[in-house]
Amino acid sequence: MRSVVLHGPRDVRVEDTPDPEIVEPTDAIIKVTATCVCGSDLWPYRGLEPVNQPSRMGHEYVGVVDQIGSAVNDLQIGDLVVGSFVASDNTCEICQAGFQSRCIHQVMMGSVGTQAEYARIPLADGTLVKVPGTPTEQQLKSLLAASDVLGTGWFAAVAAEAGPGKTVAVVGDGAVGLLGILAAKHLGAERIIAFSRHADRQALATKFGATDIVEERGEGGIKRVLELTNGYGAHSTIEAVGTQEAMDQAIGSTRAGGHVGFVGVSHGVELNGFGLFWATVSLLGGPAPVRRFLPELIELIMTDQIDPGQVFDLTLPIEQAAEGYKAMDERRATKVMLTL
Amino acid sequence: MRSVVLHGPRDVRVEDTPDPEIVEPTDAIIKVTATCVCGSDLWPYRGLEPVNQPSRMGHEYVGVVDQIGSAVNDLQIGDLVVGSFVASDNTCEICQAGFQSRCIHQVMMGSVGTQAEYARIPLADGTLVKVPGTPTEQQLKSLLAASDVLGTGWFAAVAAEAGPGKTVAVVGDGAVGLLGILAAKHLGAERIIAFSRHADRQALATKFGATDIVEERGEGGIKRVLELTNGYGAHSTIEAVGTQEAMDQAIGSTRAGGHVGFVGVSHGVELNGFGLFWATVSLLGGPAPVRRFLPELIELIMTDQIDPGQVFDLTLPIEQAAEGYKAMDERRATKVMLTL
Repeated sequence: MRSVVLHGPRDVRVEDTPDPEIVEPTDAIIKVTATCVCGSDLWPYRGLEPVNQPSRMGHEYVGVVDQIGSAVNDLQIGDLVVGSFVASDNTCEICQAGFQSRCIHQVMMGSVGTQAEYARIPLADGTLVKVPGTPTEQQLKSLLAASDVLGTGWFAAVAAEAGPGKTVAVVGDGAVGLLGILAAKHLGAERIIAFSRHADRQALATKFGATDIVEERGEGGIKRVLELTNGYGAHSTIEAVGTQEAMDQAIGSTRAGGHVGFVGVSHGVELNGFGLFWATVSLLGGPAPVRRFLPELIELIMTDQIDPGQVFDLTLPIEQAAEGYKAMDERRATKVMLTL
Repeated sequence: MRSVVLHGPRDVRVEDTPDPEIVEPTDAIIKVTATCVCGSDLWPYRGLEPVNQPSRMGHEYVGVVDQIGSAVNDLQIGDLVVGSFVASDNTCEICQAGFQSRCIHQVMMGSVGTQAEYARIPLADGTLVKVPGTPTEQQLKSLLAASDVLGTGWFAAVAAEAGPGKTVAVVGDGAVGLLGILAAKHLGAERIIAFSRHADRQALATKFGATDIVEERGEGGIKRVLELTNGYGAHSTIEAVGTQEAMDQAIGSTRAGGHVGFVGVSHGVELNGFGLFWATVSLLGGPAPVRRFLPELIELIMTDQIDPGQVFDLTLPIEQAAEGYKAMDERRATKVMLTL
């Protein structure tokens, strides 16, 4: 089958690789309908994470069940399914508490590689959620978004306790930050302050529900949020970047007693305990338990209540994956869908 | 009046200082009935925080209202009152959200110094809570505990979301940690694991509700908690020390999706963002909003439903304050009450 393989910094190739096979009886094989490039794929692409050997890429997917293992009970061949970037049993105490991304049997889908024609999905019954009906082209994009960026933005908004009467600040105007805005809006937030310097992303932020745009960053950005909130700061802040500056900006923008949901994969961030003590904010972050939200998100998408697929501003056939990575790296695209 | 003054590391003296006066119309002056030495007083006492000039000490107090400013409406001379270590207006948005320790008009009582015959209490209406009736000697101890260590342990347990069905781990067997156990028990925790190596503190921990005692620390301590919880870790962990080792132990003992309440004043702690991301625990800490809990705590104490005063294992007249500091420093006492 054809697969996207990263050979080194900025060296993306599409190659023939062996078809996946059922390994565990709880596995399924899906024929990938659509996949995409993640902001986190850019870390190794940019050489900011080591690439020691040619690596299969991708962890987002919508697909059709093609084969099932002998212990798979809830899926049938031909089912259209969405799963998260972490395979999970959905039965352990951690999963049952809604943290499937830290399932005690978790398998990171990045180690599988879903930017390919087929993918092996471990723990298929726990991981995959069936899509009812036949999605439109736009709904398909949204379902693909649900696989990671939507679910991650949603988790960030929930972790930040966005809700009625709340002012929410969003650090990061990539796909996750933008969908954090959409989530905060859906959860009933009164006011949503988006940090963004890019006109196209500002426009989408506003479309998704942002009420205020702040172009300043760092201390200047924090000052603006304080000005916009009578000196108190936001109740709820979403951090969707993963850098020191973004994390400091998120914590600094949040009032005492407020909540920060951080979902940017942390790169080189150090938090000073004394500063955090005196900030007195709740901090919850990590790999988003997308599986927790998938059934609700799929329903919202298939009934056209939300349209997160708008974050995909470039669609390419998988053979042109290299151009997709390049466009995201150069910020010519927010999020790139790869079709098969 | 007589006051406790720290002149340098391990140099505690009791001296004559000027009587306090009403400065702001919202002030009250209280005649201190009882005060005490805090674990956090030991940081400067041990030279781990600089002492650049002779410093008045103390921030915990029970007292009788002696004078009130012209804008004080809810208190009368002669009222027996308890307040927290942070004076707060109790009306700003931060206070109303229950985070009075970060009131926008906050005054740290440590800057006032309550180890003295009299103390000026800023924002008296917001800060002081009246005690109904006349406390017994034991209830007086408990009311004094409510001023800081009980309220702090209570906040830690609430921040850690201790409650029915939960396993709570408690790092730190000082007064705050011990009262965190009492709080977790009162909040309905199913199982409470106390880290402690001292027989007397283990005994009090058990009396307050600990179901398991772990003597190991660091990685060994984490391993024991995992063994006691089917490999999952605690749902809720209280950190009541403030060191790197204690914070790492607290986070490491907590399951993904669990909560850490940290109230040890952070000294030299650095949290690695990547580690925190993958820990996927909620973190909330800071100076405890004791004022939030005071009305409830006073009622529980005056109706003998809780007896937190047991943490005071040494009571001395204020003239012997130096011996009180020494006993706590040498761990001969858990918590020292000073009487006037």
